[in-house]
Order: sequence, then C-alpha cells, then structure tokens
Amino acid sequence: LRVREALRAPEPVEQVKVQGWVRSVRSQKEVLFLHINDGSSLESLQIIADPSLENRDLTFGSAVEVQGKLVKSPHKMQNMELKAETIRVVGPCDTLVCHCSRSPTDRTTLEMDFKMSKCAAKHAQTEVSLMFSLFQDNGYVHIHTPVITSNDCEGAGELFQIGVSNEAKESAEKTHFFNVPAFLTVSGQLHLEVMAGAFTHVFTFGPTFRAENSQSRRHLAEFYMVEAELSFTESLQDIMQVMEDLFKTVTSTVLSKCPHDVELFHKYVAPGKQRSLPRKMGLFFPSSCSISYSEAVEILKQASQAFTFKPEWGCDLQTEHEKYLVKHCGEVPVFVINYPYDLKPFYMRDNEDGPQHTVAAVDLLVPGVGELCGGSLREERLPFLESRLQRLGLADTYQWYLDLRKFGSVPHGGFGMGFERYLQYILGVDNIKDVIPFPRFSHSCLL
Amino acid sequence: LRVREALRAPEPVEQVKVQGWVRSVRSQKEVLFLHINDGSSLESLQIIADPSLENRDLTFGSAVEVQGKLVKSPHKMQNMELKAETIRVVGPCDTLVCHCSRSPTDRTTLEMDFKMSKCAAKHAQTEVSLMFSLFQDNGYVHIHTPVITSNDCEGAGELFQIGVSNEAKESAEKTHFFNVPAFLTVSGQLHLEVMAGAFTHVFTFGPTFRAENSQSRRHLAEFYMVEAELSFTESLQDIMQVMEDLFKTVTSTVLSKCPHDVELFHKYVAPGKQRSLPRKMGLFFPSSCSISYSEAVEILKQASQAFTFKPEWGCDLQTEHEKYLVKHCGEVPVFVINYPYDLKPFYMRDNEDGPQHTVAAVDLLVPGVGELCGGSLREERLPFLESRLQRLGLADTYQWYLDLRKFGSVPHGGFGMGFERYLQYILGVDNIKDVIPFPRFSHSCLL
Repeated sequence: LRVREALRAPEPVEQVKVQGWVRSVRSQKEVLFLHINDGSSLESLQIIADPSLENRDLTFGSAVEVQGKLVKSPHKMQNMELKAETIRVVGPCDTLVCHCSRSPTDRTTLEMDFKMSKCAAKHAQTEVSLMFSLFQDNGYVHIHTPVITSNDCEGAGELFQIGVSNEAKESAEKTHFFNVPAFLTVSGQLHLEVMAGAFTHVFTFGPTFRAENSQSRRHLAEFYMVEAELSFTESLQDIMQVMEDLFKTVTSTVLSKCPHDVELFHKYVAPGKQRSLPRKMGLFFPSSCSISYSEAVEILKQASQAFTFKPEWGCDLQTEHEKYLVKHCGEVPVFVINYPYDLKPFYMRDNEDGPQHTVAAVDLLVPGVGELCGGSLREERLPFLESRLQRLGLADTYQWYLDLRKFGSVPHGGFGMGFERYLQYILGVDNIKDVIPFPRFSHSCLL
Repeated sequence: LRVREALRAPEPVEQVKVQGWVRSVRSQKEVLFLHINDGSSLESLQIIADPSLENRDLTFGSAVEVQGKLVKSPHKMQNMELKAETIRVVGPCDTLVCHCSRSPTDRTTLEMDFKMSKCAAKHAQTEVSLMFSLFQDNGYVHIHTPVITSNDCEGAGELFQIGVSNEAKESAEKTHFFNVPAFLTVSGQLHLEVMAGAFTHVFTFGPTFRAENSQSRRHLAEFYMVEAELSFTESLQDIMQVMEDLFKTVTSTVLSKCPHDVELFHKYVAPGKQRSLPRKMGLFFPSSCSISYSEAVEILKQASQAFTFKPEWGCDLQTEHEKYLVKHCGEVPVFVINYPYDLKPFYMRDNEDGPQHTVAAVDLLVPGVGELCGGSLREERLPFLESRLQRLGLADTYQWYLDLRKFGSVPHGGFGMGFERYLQYILGVDNIKDVIPFPRFSHSCLL
C-alpha cells in the first residue's frame, strides 16, 4: 500500500504492508511513534508500535517496511494510522554522518526543503499534463523537435557545440560526427515551422539550451520550453490569445486543483520577498492588458524610479524595466508588442511602419519573474525574408528556410514559454534553480 | 473549420471557411475538383468549384483558403464535401521546381510518404500520451532528468561532449563552462535512482544520445527513451511485469484505437519485407516467454543456421542472434534474463551464482526490431558496489552514487525502452529514420 492510499483508506484494513522512509521517530515509555513517507503524499503516515520494535537502525532517513493493521486514528489531524506488528529496516541511514552539521532547527528546514522539492516535482508533472491536454484538445499535433541541430536559430552566439568525447579519435578522422558543426538547440521554432506546413497547428515541449555565463535567479543553461506554431494566422492578437489561454487555463486549474501545495510554497518563501499570491494574478488577467514597446519606453522614461539602465527607444528592456512595467500595470501579466526591427531576429514579421520601424513581436511579462513568453508573427513574404537574410549574410545557411516560403507558404506565427520560469511564477519561488531537481548553470553540473 | 471537423460534420453548414494545402487538382469542363488537407486528418476534403475559380497558382502543394457551403456528398466514399464560393491562394507552390524530377508514379509515392510521416507523427503523440497516463495512473512521478550531465553513466565511451561554440573564448578562459567536462546523457537512469529515493516510483521520457558511428536501420544518435525506476523491488520478475504491462497496454490500445493507421503502414511496407502484423504479437504475449541468457546461448549453438558471429557464452547477443531467438520462440516478444557479470555495467545486481557468474539483467527482444527494452535490478548493497567501482577505477567519480546506498538505501530496479524503436515495431517500419521528422545519425544532421 502506498502512504497516500493508506491515509485515504475509507475503512480499517486487517493486514497491510507499507514501505517508505522514516521522517520522524519519537520513542515513549509505552509506545513508539514513527512517521513514514514514500513520496506519494505530502503528509506522512503515523505508525504506532510497541517500544520493543525499536532498534538502533530505526532512524530519520532509514528505509523501512512496516506490516500491521490500518486503523482509524483517534486524532483529528489524520484519518488513518498504522498499528505495526513488524518493522523491518531495509536500508539504514547514519544520521550522524548525514546531518552532523545540522541543528534541530535545520532539521525542520531540511524537512521543509524535502516537502518543497517533492511538491515542485509533482507540480511540474501536473503542469506538463495540463499543457499537453490543452494543446491536444485544440487540435495541435505534438512534435519532437531535435536537441542536436546544425542551425544556430537566432545567430545569438550563446550556443553549446557538440563534439565526440574521444578527442583523439575526432582529430584523427578530421571530420565532425555529423559532417557539419552541430549545436544544442536554443529553440524548436524553426523545426516547428516546417511541421506547421503539414499539420497547421503544432506544439513541442522539450529541452533547450543557452551557454550564457549568468548566475541570475532567472536563468538556467538547460531548461524546458513549450512552443507552439500556428499556420494561417495573420494577427498578433490571435497568437496572444493562445498565449493567454494557455497561461490562464493552466494557472487557474493548478490553483483550484492544488491550493495546498501553492500555499505551502508561499508560506515558506523568505519573508519580505513574499509577494501576492498568483491566485489573484491568475484569475485577474484582463485581456486588454497590452502595451506597445514604444508606449512601454514612454512609461519608463516618465518613471520617478532611477534605473541602472536608462530606458531608450531601440534598447532591450532590462529586468528592472520589466518589473516596473508589471508594477505600473497593477501587478498583473502584461503583453508588450511591436519591438524595434533591429532588436529582433530575422524571422519576425516586418510591420513596415516608420520611422520607428518595428516587427510583430510580443513578450509576456509576469509579476515576480519578468519575461515568461516570447512570440511573433513570422515573416512569410519571400522577398522581405530574402533581403533580410542577405544583409545578415545568412542567406546560404537558411536556404532551406527560404524554401519554406516558396512552396505553399502561409501567414503564421507562434510563441515559446519557459517552463521552469512558469513553475517559478506559479509557486512563487525566488530562485529558478529551486524548481527542478538537477539544475544546470555556469560552473555547475552536479551529477 | 479544420478538415477533420468538416469531414465529420453531422449536418450541412451554410457558410464555412477551410484552410489547407492542395493535395490534388482536377479540372473538368463543368466543374473543378480539389482535394485539400490541413494535417488534421489522413483523408482530404473534396472541394467542388466552378471552373471560373481556377487560376494558375492553384496547383498541387499550394496553400489555399476556401469559403463556401458544406454539403452532404453524393459519393459513398465521403460524408461531406465543400461547394466553394471563393478560393484564395495564400501561398503558391511552383510544382515545376518542386517536383521536376518526379514522375506521376513518384507523385503517388510522395503522397504516400506524406501520409505516412503524418501518421508517424500522430502516432508518436498517441503513444506518448498512453505511456504517460499508464505511469501516472499507477502512481509514478514524472521526472525531468537532465540532458547535460557530468557523469558518463555506463563508461561506454560513446558520448557527445559539450563545449561552448565560441572556441576562442573557451581557450582564453581555460575552463569548462560547467567547470567539469560535460556530456549529453546516454540514460536518465542514475538521476532516476536519486529521485526513486524520494518518490518510490518514478519515470522519465526524454532525449538520450549515442555517438555511435552506425548507419544501421535500428540506430539513431539522438532518440527518446521512456525509463522507469521502482524502489522496494527485490525481484526481476516485478520489473518484467511492469515492462510487459507497458508494452501490452500501449500496443493493444493503439491497435484498437488506430487500426487504419497501422494497416496503412503495413500495406506500404516494401513487399517481401512485410511481416506479420503486430496485432497478433501485441495480443499474444505469454508472460512465460522468458529464457535465461545461458539458455539463449544453448539455443543458438544448436541452431542449424550459420551465424556471422559465433554464439559463445560471455559474448554479447548480436542482431542476428536476437532475430533467431525471436523466431525460435514463435515470433513473439522474448525476455532474456541473467546476463554475464562481465558484460554488463557496474550498477547491475550480482546474482552471486557461478561458475557462470551473472547479474539480474533483462532485455526484451521483439519481432522485426530486436532489442527494445533493457532493465535490471540495481546493486543496492554498498560493499558489492564499492568493490566493483574500485576495480573499475570509478569509485571517486561515483562517490555520490555510493552515498545513495548509505542513507536509506532500498532494493530497486528499473528499465528503459527506446521510443523510436517502439514506433518502428508497432508501425512495422523497416528503417528507424522513417518514424521521426528530423533524424540524427552519423554524417547527418539536416536543419
């Protein structure tokens, strides 16, 4: 029986076996209390045993197998408890070595960390399922875009390159494994665009990479992105509508399905850094809350706040700017649209406006996190794309991309959402490294 | 309206708009016939139009937007058709350039390829959903294991190594981005083992990599694996039961849900290479169909067939051997268990038998594909693991792994299944490169 099932059992059960790890041991004269957990529930199961069953291996962290009777608990706080007949320690845990540097208060922190990381992992699972369902219910086809790619997508230059590990072998052969230089993908977008030419609506959910030498609370070198691409789409508003639906539906479902988890997180966010619950943000999301980049720059220029980076038309919005804009709009998610042409990658659709020349791009900024999603209409007009790629010296590299505009091209667009940033947002976690079990960032690749 | 919805509409609709790509154009004196598809269905929608609506851009492959009335079709083969009022070509397709080298027969092949690749993409989606549901319904927690890792897992030496793309920058800094050498993961197993110590039952579905210089029909340099890890498991049979449930449930669900797709694939598999439908294999899967490695070697030695590689106890089973074993057992999936100790990686559990010393490993061989899954009990006993790692000179590298055996260690095991191989199996596709849109293998990394 899993702990979750034991806790929820409607009736007493004569003979059960529960396996898990000891979360607390309290020995009294007449009775031995244990709490064990197996990861199936945030709550632990209370075990009542005869003190004769205690042994020196029965410590915090040890793995045990308990057999006995599942009975109604006399305490209000829990439904069932387990009267142990046998307790077998299958894996001891030397607490002296394990926690020697930790005081009893630290033990609570440890327990809290444990609950929170479990919670984060389960959340990731919930959110992924919700996103998949939402896309699939709306007729999107899921595509596995590749991790290894020979194109560098945005020409951003923050790429990881791939070689074979046996360097001698590589230099002996004097060739690349793939014949061409290969990189870790920074986005599945270009591949999604290919597939959107067959399926109309497609999405992907996969790992993406940035070789940014950043120690920020918002950046990882390896992170997941959910990306969608929509053929036959001529308006940025349509793309924003899909972004908003995704954001709103998943957020409100999570908040209504797992309020305890979310509260747990918010409760343990360091005091002072605590911010208003996303519950409020999730349900309040006026669709009109969108401003143009030019308006955003004006708002920033008129701000009383002194920025480290002076806001100037043509420059990227910095984190401090994003935070100000979100605050200015009332701590709700904010769409910023129509960014300067020269700031954005070649594939974004020229708005042909001027003299402040822009492209049909959109970023979604959210409280506490800043930029969460980015999207655009893609330039579907061959002459525009050709001349831009030629000016950038990329026309040969992206010949295949130009070909997509020659044979049954359609107006289209799409967006990507950083998955860990979304988790960070919904859980109110300050540092993105705390929402996943094995974070990768510069100077760190544990295990 | 999507094509799928149009085809399935229960009633005529006065005014609809359908967007898609032209799959055929047939112009007659009195009427213009088109078929258009938008990827939502394998069937295309028939459009009936006045010949005056024809224009030179209306060719095979072009993208169109058709407005008109959806009416009942007089033909038996289809339910609804669309009487066009306007046809707008949004993206022309120059068929002379696109298909100049293709004869009309090739056109059919092209159409077939198109259907098959669409089908494969949709299948991948179906199978992924089924696997996720199956695991989650059984209480498994989904874990994102990292792509970038500092451990080389099996010490197999067929790894891709990661550098930053700007080589000058790298050599200038004289350091690795992650401070340690980093690789693309070959398996999420070791990370899953960590998480199985918190959640008991975990699974992952993610990309894995092999730098094998292989051009075989069964190998890719980048492929997806579904992997599961189960704590509190002391028997290889329990692991095999989970493997079998996964295989059987997904296979039978797919065959009952999408019989048309599977038939389409089997119909177009090159004659001569066609093999018995997995329908048969999927439903027949006697759980007793398991043999030991030693028995397998005996069967191979007594075979009348001449093998390129002579079967010998202690050597790996080759593809030809796997095929023979599957045939010998009646073209059904076959478990082979208890492989030689010296053949397998350090983490597999010592059976302590002899003199033919084995570990508790299992491979699942299936018709047409050979090895589909591999699993094992993991060595949970610290002294066994320590001495093995010391002999291999890996004790320092895997200190963290040894630590897992010190603090609440439990008997556990797990397995991995190659996802594209599974698609290859269920669709009866001869070459693994045909089941995914962007295959990566040695000397090839398109786009």
